[in-house]
Amino acid sequence: MILTVTLNAALDVTYRVDELRPHATHRVREVSTRPGGKGVNVAALLTALDEPVVATGLVGGPTGEQIRDGLAAAEIPEAFVPIAADSRRTLVVADGTDATGFWEPGPPVTEAEWDAFVNRFRGLARVARAVVLSGSLPAGLPDDAYAQLVAITAEASVPSIVDAEGAVLAAALPAGPTVVKPNAAELASVRGGAAPETPAEVLAAAHALRDAGARAVVCSRGPDGLIASTPDGAYRAVPPETVAGNPTGAGDAVVAALARGLANGESWPTMLTAAVALSAAAVAAPVAGAVDGSAYDRLRHTVEAESMVLPGSLAD
Amino acid sequence: MILTVTLNAALDVTYRVDELRPHATHRVREVSTRPGGKGVNVAALLTALDEPVVATGLVGGPTGEQIRDGLAAAEIPEAFVPIAADSRRTLVVADGTDATGFWEPGPPVTEAEWDAFVNRFRGLARVARAVVLSGSLPAGLPDDAYAQLVAITAEASVPSIVDAEGAVLAAALPAGPTVVKPNAAELASVRGGAAPETPAEVLAAAHALRDAGARAVVCSRGPDGLIASTPDGAYRAVPPETVAGNPTGAGDAVVAALARGLANGESWPTMLTAAVALSAAAVAAPVAGAVDGSAYDRLRHTVEAESMVLPGSLAD
Repeated sequence: MILTVTLNAALDVTYRVDELRPHATHRVREVSTRPGGKGVNVAALLTALDEPVVATGLVGGPTGEQIRDGLAAAEIPEAFVPIAADSRRTLVVADGTDATGFWEPGPPVTEAEWDAFVNRFRGLARVARAVVLSGSLPAGLPDDAYAQLVAITAEASVPSIVDAEGAVLAAALPAGPTVVKPNAAELASVRGGAAPETPAEVLAAAHALRDAGARAVVCSRGPDGLIASTPDGAYRAVPPETVAGNPTGAGDAVVAALARGLANGESWPTMLTAAVALSAAAVAAPVAGAVDGSAYDRLRHTVEAESMVLPGSLAD
Repeated sequence: MILTVTLNAALDVTYRVDELRPHATHRVREVSTRPGGKGVNVAALLTALDEPVVATGLVGGPTGEQIRDGLAAAEIPEAFVPIAADSRRTLVVADGTDATGFWEPGPPVTEAEWDAFVNRFRGLARVARAVVLSGSLPAGLPDDAYAQLVAITAEASVPSIVDAEGAVLAAALPAGPTVVKPNAAELASVRGGAAPETPAEVLAAAHALRDAGARAVVCSRGPDGLIASTPDGAYRAVPPETVAGNPTGAGDAVVAALARGLANGESWPTMLTAAVALSAAAVAAPVAGAVDGSAYDRLRHTVEAESMVLPGSLAD
């Protein structure tokens, strides 16, 4: 199975209203909820692909119970570790025009709760075929939380993927994650400066993260596809068509496809092709965490990953 | 004790954000929750006045648990009846400028759940000194829900106050509630037409509700105070000063003071004086359900209730 870790799991709540008007009162037409957080979205996508998965992480309080109930309803196996504080909600108010988001702060986590999680994780990682570490950390966890989990995963000779940003991603690099998947802004959040724009700039930034310890770096570039710096060389994979839809969760789909590829020992071109196709299929699906199966089947046979020539100064 | 009924209890949630911008994503700085719904607010105000109270009504699901936990934390005795569906939340997004409200729809209530509530209510009403029926009805309850509860209260020779509007208030009138407390818009919601504005118009509208069955009608008029049509005559009570603050809950404070007055067998002028003072003190308090004790003490000795001369055609 593939193990997904969501330390800052959320209940994703959507309010449907007629029109959002600041400083007015709105009757909510419909309330829908689903378990969320990047790692949970990855687990949902892998479940949709019939890939065996276990979702773990931290949940607490009545909102944590609702997250667990939602996972059970979606038939996603879970092994979340309980915390005392209430899990966060992420609220989206959707009107006819667009969506307005309200992100609650994450719950505080105690040292004892983190220790209990690490123990549980150690057992789960040992029997996983790949480990996914996705999303932000709740308050109280050290910046090197993912670094600790990557080290445990490496000891068990299991591949790991880290999808994080800033100090948390930077701290994870020396532990040697198999793959990190930043977007351009997240690349910049580690290195400082402006987000890299051209393929050469992205590749240079990816290469710097490999120098800092990551075995491979896959940069997601929205409709422009992926650029990867790997031990087998540099690659670029671009979708053959522009897919209209909801870009939320496109990055989680990239991570899901990479996790599946690592678990199955696929080559980099095969993994990157699948990642671009699954990402586009997720954009085409009406809700985050779902995937348009027919779009995925069509795209995975048309996307191609091509080798990129590394600028001389970066070739290693 | 005074019994308050909240059939559509809510968890009142406040999100503090820097500035509400439609179709952007907001980091919520602070999340606060408290049990809400008009009857719960009345129970909180009576508890703040050291008046023995029991809060009943319907709650369900994880949100219902949070409502009960909040009542326990505020030391408000409760005898809520469980339902299967999740209780609603009322969300207020507060930025530096003002508040934006999102009212979730209430949970559906089954016939069996309503029957269980009526049974519980029968026992509680028998030992109450006054009964407060406040707020909207959740889906699935008949418009005459309050009428049924008023009839049970009357059988037990206990005074009742109904704070409702539209079809629910109209249906309650023939059951003979001791007091109904509409504001001008709620008066119009029963009778149709425009909201009454002048004191004579308000009094005429109030009189019509007495004709329909209410024993007394107290109309709350915001900063203009109260106008009451009672078996002892018509009265007007006006605050001696304009109180700045948060008008949310001013109506609940009127109901709380009237319930206390009915329970203690006070005269109409005494009750109305206390109601205007408590309402102004609630406006002066920083949060709904609280009351500024010093403002209440000062105002209750300065508010005066004066008799109103009834227009000839209305005198009875």
